Amino acid sequence: MYQDKKAEIISVGTEILLGQIVDTNSAYLARQLALLGINLFRKTVVGDNAERIKEAAKEALKRSDILILTGGLGPTQDDLTKEAVSELLGKKLLLNEKIAEQIQNKIFHHHRRISKEAVFKQAMIPSSARVIPNRVGTAPGIIFEENEKTIILLPGVPQELKVMVEEEVVPYFSAKIPQKEVIKSRVLKVWGIGESEVERTINSIIDEQFNPTVALLAKREGTCIRITAKFTPNRVNEEIKRVENKIREKLGNYIYGVDEQTMESVVGSLLKRKGLTLSLAESCSGGLLSHRVTNVPGSSDYYFGGVVSYSNEVKCSLLGVPEKLIREKGAVSEGVAKQMAKGARKVGKAHLGIGITGIAGPGGGTSDKPVGLVYIALSSKKEEVCEKFMFSGGREMIKWRASQSALNMLRKYLTNNG
Amino acid sequence: MYQDKKAEIISVGTEILLGQIVDTNSAYLARQLALLGINLFRKTVVGDNAERIKEAAKEALKRSDILILTGGLGPTQDDLTKEAVSELLGKKLLLNEKIAEQIQNKIFHHHRRISKEAVFKQAMIPSSARVIPNRVGTAPGIIFEENEKTIILLPGVPQELKVMVEEEVVPYFSAKIPQKEVIKSRVLKVWGIGESEVERTINSIIDEQFNPTVALLAKREGTCIRITAKFTPNRVNEEIKRVENKIREKLGNYIYGVDEQTMESVVGSLLKRKGLTLSLAESCSGGLLSHRVTNVPGSSDYYFGGVVSYSNEVKCSLLGVPEKLIREKGAVSEGVAKQMAKGARKVGKAHLGIGITGIAGPGGGTSDKPVGLVYIALSSKKEEVCEKFMFSGGREMIKWRASQSALNMLRKYLTNNG
Repeated sequence: MYQDKKAEIISVGTEILLGQIVDTNSAYLARQLALLGINLFRKTVVGDNAERIKEAAKEALKRSDILILTGGLGPTQDDLTKEAVSELLGKKLLLNEKIAEQIQNKIFHHHRRISKEAVFKQAMIPSSARVIPNRVGTAPGIIFEENEKTIILLPGVPQELKVMVEEEVVPYFSAKIPQKEVIKSRVLKVWGIGESEVERTINSIIDEQFNPTVALLAKREGTCIRITAKFTPNRVNEEIKRVENKIREKLGNYIYGVDEQTMESVVGSLLKRKGLTLSLAESCSGGLLSHRVTNVPGSSDYYFGGVVSYSNEVKCSLLGVPEKLIREKGAVSEGVAKQMAKGARKVGKAHLGIGITGIAGPGGGTSDKPVGLVYIALSSKKEEVCEKFMFSGGREMIKWRASQSALNMLRKYLTNNG
Repeated sequence: MYQDKKAEIISVGTEILLGQIVDTNSAYLARQLALLGINLFRKTVVGDNAERIKEAAKEALKRSDILILTGGLGPTQDDLTKEAVSELLGKKLLLNEKIAEQIQNKIFHHHRRISKEAVFKQAMIPSSARVIPNRVGTAPGIIFEENEKTIILLPGVPQELKVMVEEEVVPYFSAKIPQKEVIKSRVLKVWGIGESEVERTINSIIDEQFNPTVALLAKREGTCIRITAKFTPNRVNEEIKRVENKIREKLGNYIYGVDEQTMESVVGSLLKRKGLTLSLAESCSGGLLSHRVTNVPGSSDYYFGGVVSYSNEVKCSLLGVPEKLIREKGAVSEGVAKQMAKGARKVGKAHLGIGITGIAGPGGGTSDKPVGLVYIALSSKKEEVCEKFMFSGGREMIKWRASQSALNMLRKYLTNNG
């Protein structure tokens, strides 16, 4: 029943309409509806204008059964969504004393100043509507049930909206939906081969699948393979797993992580599990690798530190790279990368060291050593190994790809050794 | 005339509708239309479904004069925008031999494989429509002029769309628009005082302005003050400047940059202008500051390198922080920050050194030294100065705020000294 209903989203806000802020709420809501198995048919954006909000809502209710509006619930004169929708549905706005008191307490507690008028505006609730409490901010959400249609008003602040959706809106729909089909996704992340090569390798799997579907998306973090399945809750996970196994057979260790995992979190878990420690020496990546390693909570357990050796002098003085080597081979060379990795390992007294040297551009390239050339070395007690890369893209992209490839070298070392 | 017309945007794509990719095109188009002075009334998102594209386009043409559709022009079976809109307008699709040849040449040149059918599909042009060449990719854009309405079809790939808009769509509208009013914005970026304090300080300016308008937006990089003016082209800049000067009178040196400037680019320019050099010692910021400094092209002119001293041992061995000091005062203390800054300056042989030590969390905090406590020191030949900060937010936010505050200390030093 419920899953045959059509849903629409209307985002309210002149700043969203004019492209000054990006509307992340409607993407989030779309994913939540998909998980519930509710079909989303359209998204609309209108500015802070009561007439246009009303018009858009009226049209949407002609086409669809479920309408979610976000934004325009706040205390200012520009916040008009509740007023517009109440008028459209012929509802009166009445002051809810209890909510007014809650808002006042919250404001007092957060030492914010807000006028009495603004408090009252947010505490005006349409007659016969259901209130969704706002645990994060002040403006409550609203649910209307009118002539078989459901209309939900949510605030525009993403943190407030998410808590309301998770705690109130999803349970509201779940209670109405019998255990039918749900849509679930799983993303496999690939690094080390290009998107077209991934496509060629798993082409037959992509083609033969209708449910689950398999889609590729090239992102900075690598090629993402999204498996999406629509099945009953008790079957959906095993169907995804079945396709995932097929893909893993073809791509093996090129897959470095799934879903929310990052390369640095995967490497961090491996280091922790094996009880190994790490130090870094970065030239062209400029500290990005160290930044990424330390984004993982608890990284101080396995990461001791590193050197950003941007100048040749720092390479020699802190990492012990021989001046002669730089003079003869150049700072961007296999030998220097290896010495940097070894130097990092030694000064950090760590099990493993990484050295990165290259040319991030836009200046500094030559025909011999063009922008994008990067050497990455890994030093262990046993030996130093080095890989040569040619990255495309601008300065920040080359830095990113160098950091990602260095982490990937570590990952492969940790899964193959020790 | 033209600027009284209403415009709408329809984004076509199931991945956009379901929130799997973010629609940056419509935000970009909205800003371009604003610059042209064309009023955007609505944005809509529909999936890859011919009926729904037609329905949305039909409704939009009832309301508005200018309709821009993005996405769904590519070679696959899912790309249906051209077909749907042509049907709605009663146009036949005819093979354009010249465009088919251009596409084939382009594909050959880029060593891409694509079927003959796919080439023909993209080369089918509606009768009596104007073609917008695609210099970046393959699918051309289309302009229809029908009963006083303008309908424009653009590809979904952002790089292709942008080139078409800049080279064809903007000139197309500009030619029709007499030199009337344009909308222009300028953003002033503030760091060092909170958003509510900024609001209190310039409240009277915000209230008295209607054109230009002044709006605040709290972002990670600081509070952004957006001045937006709608005037004739010869007057718009001076009107913005007038309001900017008023705001600068109140906020002074809290304003660190404008528009696309970042704190690191501002600091980089100051270092370059003054011929000064920089080294860094980072603990809790983990390399992020070094990463940000090296994101600026040409930063190797003034940045020599630094140390990420995540462990105490590295603080002592590479930066010369006395072990006794750490034992007595703790690694997170004013004394250690100063020694780190001094050590960075010495090992890098630079004019200025920065030292950052703190607790980024989520673990490691105590009641004496809670998560978010950060000491930042600046070392020059003359002295070491230190500031103590208490940052809120999660691990990555604390790292960011530490790096931003360190750059801001440098900026203030460079504008007040030397």
